[in-house]
Amino acid sequence: MPLEHTHGGNLNKAARKYGLPVKDITDFSANINPLGPSRKALSAISKNLDLISAYPDPDCTELKSELAKYLGIKEERLLMGNGAAELVYLLVRVLRCRRALIPVPTFCEYALAVLCQGGEVLELPMPEENGFRLPVDEIIASLPDADLLFLCNPNNPTGRLTGRKTILTILEKACLHGVMVLIDEAFMDFVPRRELFSVIKMAGQQPNLAVLYSMTKFFGIPGLRLGAIAGPGELLSRMSAARDPWNVNVLAQVAGVAGLMDYQHMRDTCRIVNCEKKFLFGQLASLPGVQPLPAAANFILADVAGSGFTSFELTELLGRQGVLVRECSDFNGLAGRFLRLAVKTRPENEKLLLALKAIVQGENK
Amino acid sequence: MPLEHTHGGNLNKAARKYGLPVKDITDFSANINPLGPSRKALSAISKNLDLISAYPDPDCTELKSELAKYLGIKEERLLMGNGAAELVYLLVRVLRCRRALIPVPTFCEYALAVLCQGGEVLELPMPEENGFRLPVDEIIASLPDADLLFLCNPNNPTGRLTGRKTILTILEKACLHGVMVLIDEAFMDFVPRRELFSVIKMAGQQPNLAVLYSMTKFFGIPGLRLGAIAGPGELLSRMSAARDPWNVNVLAQVAGVAGLMDYQHMRDTCRIVNCEKKFLFGQLASLPGVQPLPAAANFILADVAGSGFTSFELTELLGRQGVLVRECSDFNGLAGRFLRLAVKTRPENEKLLLALKAIVQGENK
Repeated sequence: MPLEHTHGGNLNKAARKYGLPVKDITDFSANINPLGPSRKALSAISKNLDLISAYPDPDCTELKSELAKYLGIKEERLLMGNGAAELVYLLVRVLRCRRALIPVPTFCEYALAVLCQGGEVLELPMPEENGFRLPVDEIIASLPDADLLFLCNPNNPTGRLTGRKTILTILEKACLHGVMVLIDEAFMDFVPRRELFSVIKMAGQQPNLAVLYSMTKFFGIPGLRLGAIAGPGELLSRMSAARDPWNVNVLAQVAGVAGLMDYQHMRDTCRIVNCEKKFLFGQLASLPGVQPLPAAANFILADVAGSGFTSFELTELLGRQGVLVRECSDFNGLAGRFLRLAVKTRPENEKLLLALKAIVQGENK
Repeated sequence: MPLEHTHGGNLNKAARKYGLPVKDITDFSANINPLGPSRKALSAISKNLDLISAYPDPDCTELKSELAKYLGIKEERLLMGNGAAELVYLLVRVLRCRRALIPVPTFCEYALAVLCQGGEVLELPMPEENGFRLPVDEIIASLPDADLLFLCNPNNPTGRLTGRKTILTILEKACLHGVMVLIDEAFMDFVPRRELFSVIKMAGQQPNLAVLYSMTKFFGIPGLRLGAIAGPGELLSRMSAARDPWNVNVLAQVAGVAGLMDYQHMRDTCRIVNCEKKFLFGQLASLPGVQPLPAAANFILADVAGSGFTSFELTELLGRQGVLVRECSDFNGLAGRFLRLAVKTRPENEKLLLALKAIVQGENK
């Protein structure tokens, strides 16, 4: 059970640890759009800097309207948040969750949100030998004792994607037991033909379905904080009443609107992430003792057990060379053997591969 | 008892209501630095836009260090928040507050935070006939049944400032009953010789004292969201564990650091707010039927009972002319008679005075 927030992307901490300037660190530990934010978003921020001297629109009127269009849902089905993480905490609080089901390994904030509000967590293992597949039977069997189920799709950190049919089966059973299901689709924008997998358009039609959406990853603005949740109106009203009123800052609102209108940036992102994912996957697979796993999103989980190094050792050796990767031992079931690697641009991916190759081939000689 | 968030500063809503473009509205309804943000803060944002593509520092390392220096306290005594409002909600949750004492009229988010987490609120009236003075005896008498006491100093919306000695008396009694006291010093930076009134330097020394601090008002960046709480280390650790990890966006962190180093902007702010407050107060007092109350911060509460108009009517008539004021009927004890007016620059204050004068003199003729 995780006891503290452990995440990738803490560049300041890494810089202090390895004695390097932040600018010399290439960050594969956070799964962010390798192209960075849309230039239109950056320009919208610059043009609207004067807005910081007034309170943000508490209703995120314009942003919600644009996001609803993009997602193909009604804007009444959406509530915006200060990043998706805020909304996880808010949902758990509003539901007064007593017992949550969480298939693991997955994003640690689900469990932390439940525990810090006094609820219990029942972790359902997704073992590597099953390809980190969702344990559908175990989930269904555990529903009677639960009030909330978290499903991350595609899952972080495994990169495993679950089909819509499986999700709908679970959703139906959960409904019978009055269990709310939160599907976290934070990485769904990176999935080719996402409409075959996403259930966000169903939000509001199923009384027990809430879908989490993140604008920080695909739109490349984690520093600004921007997320959303789609769900039944009654749930959103309760969440809205329980949040602080100005949770989404004005520059995030402005950048979000501009990013949603930059179709070229979205197309480029999909093209480059998919192309570079293939490249990185192939190159990783060719390294001795490194086994990348099938990856639906913009990151690759790699099993390094055969490399002669633990994941800790590799993380440390790469870190000293300014290559920051996500050691995965704090994810349940991934101790000592796994690295999570974000897909980045070609020169960056080559920097990672060169450094990793030198380490594992040096040892294996 | 307030049932929803009602606040000044919602320019979008006002623009829709009065059919005016946002830029044609002069906003006296939110109590923000009339000079706007420091130019150094704006320039820091522009120079650091690339930071939005990485996660914010969850520990706000640099900002906390600068703010601690500014406040004259140790940085271990501080936790940063996505605006002070987030920290009110977080504190109430972490304390699992069952029964809070709130002298009213005051900022409505205290009560909302307690109610939405299932706690009770005991409101202690501060009647106008006592000059909205803190009801010290009633507070002390109510301590045995409470676990949390909110004190806003200077108080919003009355502008009343409570002396340090009174605060310390209450604090001592609260300590005997194990009652946590949250002193909200969101407007303390506007108070001349604030060191005579602020108790923030005592945070961490008293086990039952937490002090709320806002960077949105004095530093003029409400759109970015930035607040802090100072208190005992054990309380801050619990609050930090219960928040989502990236609550403070990176541009707020950067702007905060730059703002704290712009001494000239701070000095100018104090000078102009004090000068304009005198001007606005004098001019308001000279209007028939308008009575401004002594104001410690950067806003003035005005009793308009004698004007021949209700506060609703004046708000509506001013709004149509693009002058947005804060009607105060949702504050307990202020029904129908009070407007809260932010102190702004001379041309803006003159716009308000001209519009208000035309209305009240037209009626009184």
